[in-house]
Amino acid sequence: MSERRGHDLGLHRVIEPEGALPQAAQRLDAESEAFDNEIVIDVQTLNIDSASFHQIIGELGRDEEKVAERVRSIVAERGKMQNPVTGSGGMLLGTVKAIGKDYKGPVELKVGQRVASLVSLTLTPLKIDRVIKVHLDADQMDIEGTAYLWPSSPIVAMPEDLPERVALSALDVCGAPAQTARLVAGQKRVLVLGAGKSGMLCAATARATLGDAGEVYAVDLHDTNLKLLKEAGIVDDFRTANAKVPTEVLHAVEAMTGGELVDVVINTCNVSGTEMSAILPARDRGVVYFFNMATDFSRAALGSEGVGKDVDLLIGNGYAHGHAELTLKMVREFEVVRSRLEALTGEG
Amino acid sequence: MSERRGHDLGLHRVIEPEGALPQAAQRLDAESEAFDNEIVIDVQTLNIDSASFHQIIGELGRDEEKVAERVRSIVAERGKMQNPVTGSGGMLLGTVKAIGKDYKGPVELKVGQRVASLVSLTLTPLKIDRVIKVHLDADQMDIEGTAYLWPSSPIVAMPEDLPERVALSALDVCGAPAQTARLVAGQKRVLVLGAGKSGMLCAATARATLGDAGEVYAVDLHDTNLKLLKEAGIVDDFRTANAKVPTEVLHAVEAMTGGELVDVVINTCNVSGTEMSAILPARDRGVVYFFNMATDFSRAALGSEGVGKDVDLLIGNGYAHGHAELTLKMVREFEVVRSRLEALTGEG
Ligand SMILES: NC(=O)c1ccc[n+]([C@@H]2O[C@H](COP(=O)([O-])OP(=O)(O)OC[C@H]3O[C@@H](n4cnc5c(N)ncnc54)[C@H](OP(=O)(O)O)[C@@H]3O)[C@@H](O)[C@H]2O)c1
Ligand SMILES: NC(=O)c1ccc[n+]([C@@H]2O[C@H](COP(=O)([O-])OP(=O)(O)OC[C@H]3O[C@@H](n4cnc5c(N)ncnc54)[C@H](OP(=O)(O)O)[C@@H]3O)[C@@H](O)[C@H]2O)c1
Repeated sequence: MSERRGHDLGLHRVIEPEGALPQAAQRLDAESEAFDNEIVIDVQTLNIDSASFHQIIGELGRDEEKVAERVRSIVAERGKMQNPVTGSGGMLLGTVKAIGKDYKGPVELKVGQRVASLVSLTLTPLKIDRVIKVHLDADQMDIEGTAYLWPSSPIVAMPEDLPERVALSALDVCGAPAQTARLVAGQKRVLVLGAGKSGMLCAATARATLGDAGEVYAVDLHDTNLKLLKEAGIVDDFRTANAKVPTEVLHAVEAMTGGELVDVVINTCNVSGTEMSAILPARDRGVVYFFNMATDFSRAALGSEGVGKDVDLLIGNGYAHGHAELTLKMVREFEVVRSRLEALTGEG
Repeated sequence: MSERRGHDLGLHRVIEPEGALPQAAQRLDAESEAFDNEIVIDVQTLNIDSASFHQIIGELGRDEEKVAERVRSIVAERGKMQNPVTGSGGMLLGTVKAIGKDYKGPVELKVGQRVASLVSLTLTPLKIDRVIKVHLDADQMDIEGTAYLWPSSPIVAMPEDLPERVALSALDVCGAPAQTARLVAGQKRVLVLGAGKSGMLCAATARATLGDAGEVYAVDLHDTNLKLLKEAGIVDDFRTANAKVPTEVLHAVEAMTGGELVDVVINTCNVSGTEMSAILPARDRGVVYFFNMATDFSRAALGSEGVGKDVDLLIGNGYAHGHAELTLKMVREFEVVRSRLEALTGEG
């Protein structure tokens, strides 16, 4: 076979516009056979981003055939599943079909292995041969198709000891626990704002990192998860408060700490307007980590300036070395996290 | 006189909505006399945010009287200068009129001193008595009025050795040099993306911090400032490239470094779509600092994930301890920076 050398960032698959990276591209080439630096995936399930899936259903109604046709036509046109309205993608699940000789990916993989992509579908060359079933309530589609990943695209082998949907929902947010482990190391007080899937995983990671050497606090609108986290010894204390009202959160935190501010704040809410609730409780030179994708850049930058807060404001990068492994480890080690994820995904 | 204790974050001036911080508030109370923790400023000049000023002129035309009336009515209605269309404010220049007995502000000030606020007008209680003159080309208005600042609001004494407009334009971006000094300390390779006002100041700060122990590179669309920075020894090398085309910037950087990536990237462009140009040139576990307010949170978060880059992504907090002093020091120490700011502001 001839040499088919690809670019490390996937530029060899970009059709237009020229010079764009695959995510910014209008159209990818998903027809060409594999390049030497690619791994080929037999795709079985597309996990469509929730915002995208709901936009499609909102437009077409809950009609499996129409939804299937829409996704098929987007992918046929763009060479990737990127909803032109929401701009978002999703993840995929499948089996390794072939590994190019120059593929040096982030983890060791072999042909036949079950894998999930940890990179957005918005930059993954994808070809759909057949849609088997649309799962309207799970934002998922079972398909027959092919995807190509190059070395810079994070990918993970699916664990064999966890229900697939539990693993997927944890992997979807796996950037947060990895950053949490780094940021809380050596600190005394940590606040987790929002105690949903990523919030629970971050609280567990903070506890695992700090042991008894630091305090982990949590705030959420409702106390269902908070109580369970406290019972399990993952958080030392919690309060319910509305993260859209910064002073409410500040008072809740001061009530827990006896008036002190915290070293690190991890914002895992899923609503907008929570920037200042994360910034106010942070101490001078503390760190605020925004995993919440509804964070507004300028509200955080100007808001922090507005209260004269000298804190580091971090954007929640979805990738960190070892992020998938660490996250699955937390699911395995903390029974309460696993059982909540099972309940949320309807498994177990 | 009676006790008039104010809240450290200015909540005592918020009329509506209840619980909001001054920046998020619809209306502030700028009528009440000073509280014990406030400093009172006789305001002489409003430096209206450029986006806001241009929106007003776009709507009303270049008519000084109409512009004055619009600003007056916004301030009368909201108790602060926050353009309801753009949401943005500006800065003010004035003279200290009174200092409350409980005002413990960020710097030592005395009555009669000339000061600039380093906090947005969007959260500063302001009352306008009279508009003296509108400077249509400078986004400025001379007025008679009163403003109140509480301890958490950054403020600075105007330097006596620099032209006022030069000092103002440097102070407007003073968050960036302070962060740059921290981030580049001990590093080997720094890239400054965009070489305008804040870019020149950041490059100078990187040079001052690193001395000969590291390399400072710069990229901009045009080479006017770049050449001057190189001649002055502030940058070691430069290239022109379009920060909206990530691979162009990556290649430019690799050409300067001999193929290496850099430890720290400082993004000071003033246009959108430059996230990936800042992320790609950063090395594994490097730092990318987004001072550019046109940065999009999710493009940075998902873009970095999309190329599997484990880098820290920092939001450009407008405040850092000592930011104004450091910035003015850079203007004084680096002749080329001062003369470029003089040229840009029409001074000197
Ligand atoms: N940066 C990245 O790479 C990346 C990747 C994936 C996801 N994310 C983001 O991560 C965020 C969290 O995802 P997730 O899967 O953990 O979501 P989730 O399970 O829905 O958790 C969000 C939590 O925030 C709580 N919450 C909502 N509004 C609140 C308020 N006003 N005050 C206090 N708490 C509030 C929710 O409480 P209730 O349920 O009790 O209302 C819920 O417990 C999302 O914004 C998502 O976009 C980021
Ligand atoms: N975070 C904060 O607290 C804060 C506070 C104030 C300002 N800011 C932000 O800081 C940024 C810079 O402010 P500034 O006063 O330094 O602006 P500036 O003086 O206008 O500098 C911007 C520079 O970026 C260059 N540039 C524009 N488009 C480019 C492209 N496509 N490729 C390469 N270079 C490009 C410009 O080049 P040319 O002039 O050659 O076209 C200019 O040299 C703005 O976005 C502003 O909003 C942030």
